[in-house]
Amino acid sequence: MLLLRRCHSLTRFGPLKTQRHQVAPAVVSCAVRLWSSSSEDRRSYQRVHGPSWRHGLAGLLAGTGAVLAYGLHHHKAEQQDTVRAKTIEKTSAFPIFSQEEVTSHRSLEDGVWVTYKGGVYDITEFVAMHPGGDKILLAAGGALEPFWALYAVHNQEHVLEMLSEYKVGELNADDLKKQKAVQTSDPYSSEPERHPALRINNLKPFNAEPPPEILSDSFITPSAIFFKRNHLPVPQVDTASYQLHVEGLPGGVLTLSLEELKTQFPKHTVTATLQCAGNRRSEMNEVKQVKGLNWGIAAISNATWSGARLRDVMLAAGYGPDVAQRAFHVQFEGLDKDVTGSTYGASIPLNKAVSEEGDVLLAYEMNGQDLPADHGYPVRVVVPGTVGARNVKWLGKIIVSAEESKSHWQQNDYKGFSPGTDWDTVDFKSAPAIQELPIQSAITSPANGAVVDRSLEEVTVKGYAWSGGGREVVRVDVSLDGGKTWQVAQLRSSEKGQAPEPSPPPGRAWAWKLWEVTAPLPAEAQELEIVCKAVDNSYNMQPDTVPPIWNLRGVLSNAWHRVTVVIREDGSEE
Amino acid sequence: MLLLRRCHSLTRFGPLKTQRHQVAPAVVSCAVRLWSSSSEDRRSYQRVHGPSWRHGLAGLLAGTGAVLAYGLHHHKAEQQDTVRAKTIEKTSAFPIFSQEEVTSHRSLEDGVWVTYKGGVYDITEFVAMHPGGDKILLAAGGALEPFWALYAVHNQEHVLEMLSEYKVGELNADDLKKQKAVQTSDPYSSEPERHPALRINNLKPFNAEPPPEILSDSFITPSAIFFKRNHLPVPQVDTASYQLHVEGLPGGVLTLSLEELKTQFPKHTVTATLQCAGNRRSEMNEVKQVKGLNWGIAAISNATWSGARLRDVMLAAGYGPDVAQRAFHVQFEGLDKDVTGSTYGASIPLNKAVSEEGDVLLAYEMNGQDLPADHGYPVRVVVPGTVGARNVKWLGKIIVSAEESKSHWQQNDYKGFSPGTDWDTVDFKSAPAIQELPIQSAITSPANGAVVDRSLEEVTVKGYAWSGGGREVVRVDVSLDGGKTWQVAQLRSSEKGQAPEPSPPPGRAWAWKLWEVTAPLPAEAQELEIVCKAVDNSYNMQPDTVPPIWNLRGVLSNAWHRVTVVIREDGSEE
Repeated sequence: MLLLRRCHSLTRFGPLKTQRHQVAPAVVSCAVRLWSSSSEDRRSYQRVHGPSWRHGLAGLLAGTGAVLAYGLHHHKAEQQDTVRAKTIEKTSAFPIFSQEEVTSHRSLEDGVWVTYKGGVYDITEFVAMHPGGDKILLAAGGALEPFWALYAVHNQEHVLEMLSEYKVGELNADDLKKQKAVQTSDPYSSEPERHPALRINNLKPFNAEPPPEILSDSFITPSAIFFKRNHLPVPQVDTASYQLHVEGLPGGVLTLSLEELKTQFPKHTVTATLQCAGNRRSEMNEVKQVKGLNWGIAAISNATWSGARLRDVMLAAGYGPDVAQRAFHVQFEGLDKDVTGSTYGASIPLNKAVSEEGDVLLAYEMNGQDLPADHGYPVRVVVPGTVGARNVKWLGKIIVSAEESKSHWQQNDYKGFSPGTDWDTVDFKSAPAIQELPIQSAITSPANGAVVDRSLEEVTVKGYAWSGGGREVVRVDVSLDGGKTWQVAQLRSSEKGQAPEPSPPPGRAWAWKLWEVTAPLPAEAQELEIVCKAVDNSYNMQPDTVPPIWNLRGVLSNAWHRVTVVIREDGSEE
Repeated sequence: MLLLRRCHSLTRFGPLKTQRHQVAPAVVSCAVRLWSSSSEDRRSYQRVHGPSWRHGLAGLLAGTGAVLAYGLHHHKAEQQDTVRAKTIEKTSAFPIFSQEEVTSHRSLEDGVWVTYKGGVYDITEFVAMHPGGDKILLAAGGALEPFWALYAVHNQEHVLEMLSEYKVGELNADDLKKQKAVQTSDPYSSEPERHPALRINNLKPFNAEPPPEILSDSFITPSAIFFKRNHLPVPQVDTASYQLHVEGLPGGVLTLSLEELKTQFPKHTVTATLQCAGNRRSEMNEVKQVKGLNWGIAAISNATWSGARLRDVMLAAGYGPDVAQRAFHVQFEGLDKDVTGSTYGASIPLNKAVSEEGDVLLAYEMNGQDLPADHGYPVRVVVPGTVGARNVKWLGKIIVSAEESKSHWQQNDYKGFSPGTDWDTVDFKSAPAIQELPIQSAITSPANGAVVDRSLEEVTVKGYAWSGGGREVVRVDVSLDGGKTWQVAQLRSSEKGQAPEPSPPPGRAWAWKLWEVTAPLPAEAQELEIVCKAVDNSYNMQPDTVPPIWNLRGVLSNAWHRVTVVIREDGSEE
């Protein structure tokens, strides 16, 4: 189990208003403070504070979502090459160890040793404090380089400073040479080209969202600017040898080539919106620091997906009512892997997977073309109405099971908690894995802080609205006065100028609605606090404010969206 | 179409804080003011204000829910018998008409005449202003008495005052005698006995809720105190001759006796919570006057229902995939009728009706016994996860159709609107009929205004939580400080002391959860603002406050529930 604890009273800055695309300095500062102290300081601190200190840092950034937390500070790190050099230099005149000796230290009992650039480090004490949890043990007895290449977050001054505290020796020259020879190259070296308009939240793995004002231009989001949320490097999949394995059904494992998937099952097309659980996390960060990528309002997009129905494939693999008596989940494994070969994974409830009305696809096309590399080429799962994290990309395996996926992302991430729950009290088993998402809407235009000329006499507000579970958005209310008075926006379920789509059957409204309202500028107002809130056909509504839905992981951020706009009176610049 | 308009600037009291069980005096006062003026005054008012005046009162109280609006003022009316006698006395020396002459005036073109206690009234001008909408035309050309017997709201001084303005003659003695002979007795004369603990919101039709503190005593609500929401008189159904008709399926009409329903289909049992769309309406009334019964927090209850699955009956009646191509709704007609023979009616989406997982029942048992008269004896529909109004009682007919029920309650009631929508702007066609209800919770104990002794050192807060659409309640957050800090309540899905029920399959959590939290009394606080909010497994949450979800009909009131409790310091009474 990952040890997940809050950094108790260790932050240098205290509660900090974090702005979009600028994440978690409080966390970093916490690390710096701990690790820039000498070993002696560290030990005395430990004596005073007891075991809680050991957990002080652990899990601060657990989950790949948190990779960003250090990541965006690489500029700072680069500027301080001098410091880094000094840090490394200082650690000389150590005993020499063989690779064999290092390899014999790969457990908490025997000690946990690692190597980095020829240095040997005993990190036993650090394991419990590793922000990424016990994944650090994967490197035990070997080199850190391949792991650090995978998680670019480590490429920072502070991390090297931390490591230097643990140096116990140096690797002998022969073994170092061998190690260098086998060290793999950057697993991110073959990532696809990305559209320059994307706002990058994290580079490795790649996470980016489109500018909001572009997002709401199209009912169908162009694939190039569809938000990207990768947990690991984009895998290179050879289409000719690609195989999809379906397990856990009578008749053993069904294996399908891409060609078989395309030709043996009817092609089904669904327009569905995907949303990251962390969409609008930045608004939670403004209340109180949370863990995770600091998404703005655009970790949501809408596309047309085509592929085989998961239901059809399961039926072909032997699914029947007898299976439903013993199996309750359908697990998915991606082909994207970390250095140990662990793949991304998630699961959905069996009834969603097999329902005729669930529309779950094994998609091989996005917006009428082969899936782009960033969106799961050659095959991904599309689970309409369900949080993005379960729409597993680069699909390798389907497992029908009595149990949920055991993956980190199903068990210890992507869950919601009370605002009163912190890293000391959280029990990930106590909350269900997020599947259907709640009602959501946001204002894509005007942007927060925009200026509107009084001479225009009116303002047009645009945005998107969507709800999980196939619940159709039936109304969006917009206020120009912070929520005192409301008007109803016009909804749109097709491209501008096209005929509106007919209402989908109940429970199958998978696509968002775009909305727009044009209202006169209030005569007296000097600024507008524009607010939107949506209502779905179960009449669920968005909560009013962020603090009561704040949660330590910053997911499910769906309070009313607010932007402030300044009205410039005529000639006010003269 | 019903004409639904707000009483513009005619209210005597203006915005009024309405308390529970004391409804709509502002509306009544509006009526008084209009109709206690003389005909001459009225006409001049009409000239000044034009057509909008004609609509001033119309639809003020449309829908049976609104019957209460006058109803609770019967005490006042009784006290003022003197006034009433004077009003009637004043209208003498009028021409004499025959019943035939009266009967010839039964349309807006020919004039609309009615009789009441021997008087003849030309109410043509009043039709557009009738609070109950165009139902008034049902009485055209005949006697008002049978209609007023059905809707007790009319038994008030003001109504008679209004009527007197329209007197045009008197009925001849012979016809009056005949009329008296045929006039039926009170349609409410055979209503069942009710439990004295119930808090009555309206007597005819009967609408009542249990005291909250009793409600949360039992996971399964005893039938006697299960909230009652009747729209019409309870029908007397002869079990021996009872027939259920199923129409709109291949093979014509299927007719089932009660015995056949019980023996030809498997008996299926479901524990399901029913909630009135108007539950907690009183909190909306505190913000701004709405129309409807002033329900507290207990128009919700939980019972065990047994009966045939609707799905099984539909399959027996010829339902198949071909039907799903042309039919989208299943309509229900009750055996409860108004004086014209119109029955209560509602419909649900076809996919809910036929889904194996929808669990829709044609129930003949409640909590292990025959349905009580107030709950639909001998057969009612139970649509788990769906608003009470679609759970049609005293079921007479099932119609599989391309269209929704045309009933008033499906088309022009039980829909949600923006807080900015008023009776001048509302378009009932613009909103979907309520089906699944949103996430809900409330505090049943302590009561608002309760006093807690400081010496007790802690306070225990109890309540219920439920969500529509089979979404399971996964968490209830409770705050003692108005929402600043939160703790997580303990949930219970069985009777106290019994083993907890296993979690239902996804999308089939039909029963509420009771919850409880015991917390120390905060040292400094003199009073507590206790707040609860629930979260379901689609992570929908309750909105923070009432005003932004206020709607003219007062439905879907699911903001955080708040009660204020006073802490009595030790010896503070000395």
